[in-house]
Amino acid sequence: MAEDKGPADIAARFADAWNRHDMAAFAALFHPDASFVNRFGTYWRGVGQIVAGHVPIHETIYSDSTLTNEVADVDVISADAAILHIWSRLDAGAAHPAGPHRVDTMILAVVTRREGEWRIQALENVTLVNPRTGEPILRD
Amino acid sequence: MAEDKGPADIAARFADAWNRHDMAAFAALFHPDASFVNRFGTYWRGVGQIVAGHVPIHETIYSDSTLTNEVADVDVISADAAILHIWSRLDAGAAHPAGPHRVDTMILAVVTRREGEWRIQALENVTLVNPRTGEPILRD
Repeated sequence: MAEDKGPADIAARFADAWNRHDMAAFAALFHPDASFVNRFGTYWRGVGQIVAGHVPIHETIYSDSTLTNEVADVDVISADAAILHIWSRLDAGAAHPAGPHRVDTMILAVVTRREGEWRIQALENVTLVNPRTGEPILRD
Repeated sequence: MAEDKGPADIAARFADAWNRHDMAAFAALFHPDASFVNRFGTYWRGVGQIVAGHVPIHETIYSDSTLTNEVADVDVISADAAILHIWSRLDAGAAHPAGPHRVDTMILAVVTRREGEWRIQALENVTLVNPRTGEPILRD
């Protein structure tokens, strides 16, 4: 049986599923009716769409990528809902057409608890970019 | 006295404050401890930082801009919390160094009610972009 993890554990579980390219573990992060807006503004509704949107990239350009998540802060909404900011670092590997490179993003995730399970209800991601040049920003 | 507006009204109030470049009305959209991540990944915490981050652009590059917000959907978390997706269209005017142009984004906003007032607790924005070319996408 799954234990009742806290809301912030989602960040590490997300990275772990990503790095194992384990789409079943990835799917388990989300409530069935969750929403996901990726860093290109693509909007998915429902865990089926969210997983379907990620399967192709894990089979191709991000098949050897590594994700590192750092929880920036947690805002409690209620006993069963919280807002997470997650600094996220994606290291793409040789499988990517552009070659190995790094992308830093900021994830906003709303996590809610249903029947004892914390899962993602809504998530949006944005790439860190210099507004004057349009160039990606790396955090360190 | 302010009336108890619903959570989705935030989208129209946001656009109205933006289009009047009214920073007092803009500030009133947010709880004091709100967070805001703009479409470049810049992260502000607290209404003071959020307003301070917007004052300069309303005085310069976006002084003649127009924002149009369309609520895509509302997910109820509880009686006092909801998640909004907002399709947002920013029409920059002649004041922008790049000249008049348009940017389409997707806002994820968490709105909560405190003492009868719905305000933004957390917001993140992302520009709609073609992931293959990096070019902005316009919705219609």
